[in-house]
Amino acid sequence: MKRARAIYPGTFDPVTNGHLDIIERSSKLFGHVVVGILVNPEKDPLFSVEERQDLIRRSIDADMSNVEVEAFQGLLVDYAQKRDAHVIIRGIRAVSDYEYELQMALMNRRLQPQIETMFMLPAENYSYLSSRLVREIAEHGGSISGLVPEIVEQQLLERFRK
Amino acid sequence: MKRARAIYPGTFDPVTNGHLDIIERSSKLFGHVVVGILVNPEKDPLFSVEERQDLIRRSIDADMSNVEVEAFQGLLVDYAQKRDAHVIIRGIRAVSDYEYELQMALMNRRLQPQIETMFMLPAENYSYLSSRLVREIAEHGGSISGLVPEIVEQQLLERFRK
Amino acid sequence: MKRARAIYPGTFDPVTNGHLDIIERSSKLFGHVVVGILVNPEKDPLFSVEERQDLIRRSIDADMSNVEVEAFQGLLVDYAQKRDAHVIIRGIRAVSDYEYELQMALMNRRLQPQIETMFMLPAENYSYLSSRLVREIAEHGGSISGLVPEIVEQQLLERFRK
Amino acid sequence: MKRARAIYPGTFDPVTNGHLDIIERSSKLFGHVVVGILVNPEKDPLFSVEERQDLIRRSIDADMSNVEVEAFQGLLVDYAQKRDAHVIIRGIRAVSDYEYELQMALMNRRLQPQIETMFMLPAENYSYLSSRLVREIAEHGGSISGLVPEIVEQQLLERFRK
Amino acid sequence: MKRARAIYPGTFDPVTNGHLDIIERSSKLFGHVVVGILVNPEKDPLFSVEERQDLIRRSIDADMSNVEVEAFQGLLVDYAQKRDAHVIIRGIRAVSDYEYELQMALMNRRLQPQIETMFMLPAENYSYLSSRLVREIAEHGGSISGLVPEIVEQQLLERFRK
Amino acid sequence: MKRARAIYPGTFDPVTNGHLDIIERSSKLFGHVVVGILVNPEKDPLFSVEERQDLIRRSIDADMSNVEVEAFQGLLVDYAQKRDAHVIIRGIRAVSDYEYELQMALMNRRLQPQIETMFMLPAENYSYLSSRLVREIAEHGGSISGLVPEIVEQQLLERFRK
Repeated sequence: MKRARAIYPGTFDPVTNGHLDIIERSSKLFGHVVVGILVNPEKDPLFSVEERQDLIRRSIDADMSNVEVEAFQGLLVDYAQKRDAHVIIRGIRAVSDYEYELQMALMNRRLQPQIETMFMLPAENYSYLSSRLVREIAEHGGSISGLVPEIVEQQLLERFRK
Repeated sequence: MKRARAIYPGTFDPVTNGHLDIIERSSKLFGHVVVGILVNPEKDPLFSVEERQDLIRRSIDADMSNVEVEAFQGLLVDYAQKRDAHVIIRGIRAVSDYEYELQMALMNRRLQPQIETMFMLPAENYSYLSSRLVREIAEHGGSISGLVPEIVEQQLLERFRK
Repeated sequence: MKRARAIYPGTFDPVTNGHLDIIERSSKLFGHVVVGILVNPEKDPLFSVEERQDLIRRSIDADMSNVEVEAFQGLLVDYAQKRDAHVIIRGIRAVSDYEYELQMALMNRRLQPQIETMFMLPAENYSYLSSRLVREIAEHGGSISGLVPEIVEQQLLERFRK
Repeated sequence: MKRARAIYPGTFDPVTNGHLDIIERSSKLFGHVVVGILVNPEKDPLFSVEERQDLIRRSIDADMSNVEVEAFQGLLVDYAQKRDAHVIIRGIRAVSDYEYELQMALMNRRLQPQIETMFMLPAENYSYLSSRLVREIAEHGGSISGLVPEIVEQQLLERFRK
Repeated sequence: MKRARAIYPGTFDPVTNGHLDIIERSSKLFGHVVVGILVNPEKDPLFSVEERQDLIRRSIDADMSNVEVEAFQGLLVDYAQKRDAHVIIRGIRAVSDYEYELQMALMNRRLQPQIETMFMLPAENYSYLSSRLVREIAEHGGSISGLVPEIVEQQLLERFRK
Repeated sequence: MKRARAIYPGTFDPVTNGHLDIIERSSKLFGHVVVGILVNPEKDPLFSVEERQDLIRRSIDADMSNVEVEAFQGLLVDYAQKRDAHVIIRGIRAVSDYEYELQMALMNRRLQPQIETMFMLPAENYSYLSSRLVREIAEHGGSISGLVPEIVEQQLLERFRK
């Protein structure tokens, strides 16, 4: 009996230490974890899909050999099915997050009943962390050290340097 | 690499179709699932621990061979460690549930950092279902058919018959 | 086509101005409103069922001729059916109230699909008002004037006078 | 004494089975139900007001003779007053919905104290359903069968066909 | 020992009676209160920063001599530090507000641990009041009397007169 | 102009590091802080009022000279008035906490409009901490080190040793 395969989807613009915490925890519980970067043509991201993919790959520990990073378009459940995933992993920080996630999970179950959604908690000191907040703080010159991997910190500093 | 071992703890007084839904979903994702019946000496349950254990066992499909039912006392994380579990499974129905669960999960992580808590959703038509509600309805002669397994329905009818 | 019949259930131990606000609003929208006092033999109320019934009746304006006050036991939906009610009215003050109410409403719909639950808001200055809080304040000699009808205020003062 | 008149406002872009469920339930409780399509000149809808009106009309059962579909602009309470409505009906799916709705209901009461807001629950299997989600799924080729009336499904398929 | 200095930040587009209520309460508890108008170059406000500043100043009672109104750009904690503030004051109306505020407060504490965030409640009859709602009602010709100071009411009427 | 006087009420059975965090933060912002231990004759506490008072006093840093510990009975607002307090301090961990606190704060404002309630956040790593949880963990032999002051840890160990 093989271990279950998981997908951890998100925008990751950019990846934070909260995301990496979830990736690391997932990689210990599941046989294979695909970090799926959602390509949303309508939104204007700070980092391109290729940059985001690169930043995640360079932030992941080398010993997490069962983690893969990939971009995808379209419905999450279609992508999950294509990748033979059994589980969609979602990190939840706050109660208001949860309600939206619950709605999406029920809809996704309706679309693909055999794929399960599971919720995990990031470490408590990442509970207030989001990519949007990190971008805002970096833009205004605040310190994001300890909130994102070093490589992301460097890229953000360069991006907002004038 | 072996599949992760999970514990699904609860009072199960009595087991409902919502619980069974979570047990079934978990058994597909994890290598082994222990349904852990919490023995709380301070509370006065409707069914004894032995009865609750028996009702769960008789409600589980025979093909879920990786599911085990057992009673435990004391701290959940101590029991999880004793049983070599990697994951604690919690079913969440509502947002207010979630906040309490989140608090417990953070405390349990502090007590045993290597054990992960994961949250799953029961099927949507069990979102309003709880053991307490089932007991109340049965006590007042309401129909609980479809909310609990048949064997539980029979036991509840007997218990509240006059 | 006749106007719909409504039930407004509760413990009313004692009735507050928040309850009376909901009763008055309901009486304008529905053809008949039954204020149903739930008799819970396991709980030890401050006022007896007869006293609670009497306090509500004496607090209701004479021109609300379509309002009736009655005690009931057992499941709410059974009582609603017996009284030919189409609607169960619930007043909601807070978000956490709402979640519990939502769970009950879905269960009640399952038990009696033809009976609808509708939620109404009490006036904003009653949003923090509950029978329990009124009892506590009265017990410690705080002023409850404006929170309950005068007759209830008098009865509470007598009850807690030493 | 006549039955109360209700307004059920929304954007309905497009109407879903969740909306239709609320319309049907309302039409049984109130003497007359106006489904009010809010015209918001600042937003760019998928379907025009006329199309939305047509889709709702063609989705409503012929025996709901007391239901009317109409577009409106400006403040909801002004429209409600113009239509002699006593009640504004709002369907609530989730707790976070509820808080926003509560805020709007209190403001509307301040603007027009004689108009009541009442909240109803859609059937449980529509709890995760929204027009936005339906549009997204249809756009990416997912199945929306069972989530919207057939006529809406056809229109969405045509709209997103390439 | 000197009294603590507070900052009450916001967009104030325009100031409402709910904001003024918080300003008044804060001015009694703290030695000095800076009302900080956030200048967000990406958003298109109804009133310019200068107009918003002027409207707040003209709405504040003359006897609140320890209140100052100022515009700021960039991170709130940087501005708070520059102004030697010990406390950031936030008014909270609703539970969903609270969760976002909690996230910001934890992030701000991380950025500047010596600055405390404290939450206050506006008077109950302002619990549903927001600048956005006031703008919407004024735009559609609804009455905003009692929701904003008179000077703001006049300015809004002029702005939306055709 | 003197600094404001604050009351920080609670049951403190026993005091945790989360409580101490709030006490310390308050003592920096207000001129005087009374830690008020609520004596509830109906509840059966683990530690007596005298023990709880002693544990708090021995846990407070000597340099917080403006902090006082005292027991009180009856309504909080009456006690606050007796002690000339301007502010009631409440620590909030979670969203569900908040809603109850909001209700109490509005009621207290009605009873004593001149006394303000302010909410503060404990440090993030105490967000899941409560006296009840500490008692439960200690009772079952779990480690509470780092969650409560050392003196409290010793007392709890003694209390639950057999």
